[in-house]
Amino acid sequence: MAEIESKKQLIKENIRAYNDFPKPGIVFRDVFSILQNPELFSILRELLTFSAKSFEVKPDVIVGLDSRGFLFATLVALDLQVPFVPIRKKGKLPGPTKAASYTLEYGTDALEISTDAIGKGQNALIIDDLLGTGGTLQTACNLVKEVGGNISGCLLVIELKELNGKSKINYPVQSLVQY
Amino acid sequence: MAEIESKKQLIKENIRAYNDFPKPGIVFRDVFSILQNPELFSILRELLTFSAKSFEVKPDVIVGLDSRGFLFATLVALDLQVPFVPIRKKGKLPGPTKAASYTLEYGTDALEISTDAIGKGQNALIIDDLLGTGGTLQTACNLVKEVGGNISGCLLVIELKELNGKSKINYPVQSLVQY
Repeated sequence: MAEIESKKQLIKENIRAYNDFPKPGIVFRDVFSILQNPELFSILRELLTFSAKSFEVKPDVIVGLDSRGFLFATLVALDLQVPFVPIRKKGKLPGPTKAASYTLEYGTDALEISTDAIGKGQNALIIDDLLGTGGTLQTACNLVKEVGGNISGCLLVIELKELNGKSKINYPVQSLVQY
Repeated sequence: MAEIESKKQLIKENIRAYNDFPKPGIVFRDVFSILQNPELFSILRELLTFSAKSFEVKPDVIVGLDSRGFLFATLVALDLQVPFVPIRKKGKLPGPTKAASYTLEYGTDALEISTDAIGKGQNALIIDDLLGTGGTLQTACNLVKEVGGNISGCLLVIELKELNGKSKINYPVQSLVQY
């Protein structure tokens, strides 16, 4: 466990911060800075898979959120050899879908999932890059439930603790690094 | 080689087609149908990495296009142990960037790359899910050149041959399956 913690620390130290992006007062934590270094990216992948295996309810399927969740969810799905299912912005998935909208700072946005993507009662682990206010993740959880899935939990690379997004999620949440 | 060809055939047979999506007259080839099956996804990953290694100019960096290119480019970058660099929709990357716009059927869209993402003279392999008319891929090539990179080539999962996108690209292009 000490080794895992020191690997998480290494990732945290190497996530580059940009002040005032996308607007004044915001500190942007750029997960892509890890992906530019293959050794660090390999460690990040190992940490994600390790965490994915540690949820009490074993995932039958990995759900990745469009678009930065895609970067990580595919890796875990392959490592666990379980199906990968996307949740996308509305209008991008063919076939029958369920959609749900959520509130952004200005206006609303909508996410969508294929209705046949998750079998009844299958346990889904939802993966995204970052937990902020939790609106996106909460909507993703609702969509998984709506199409008949259960939720093992949610796994994030980065958690911004001051935004308290975890309080919106009624399932186990793990993040690799916190600010 | 016979084994590679039969694996490509297996992928091709399992990419589900949806008629009249996103609009009447269009046949949508859904690469996500492969990702729902871990055995097929593992084969797809193996084929992508095999192809990535076969370019005459060895890639120093893998460029993935937002958002479906992200699904595959990360896998190849990890397999080759080279940096992953994103090209994103305009306005999503922090720090200094170069942007370029391209024409869609209605209106224009713009892509962006970080100016410091690729070293001068480094060879980039650009990965996306699908080659249609080639507008997006051509714009991505231009951006890589603008920030000082060379182009090893472009690698796609799916190529829609009737749209003749290859003719727009002045670099080696490989696709795993063609329709």
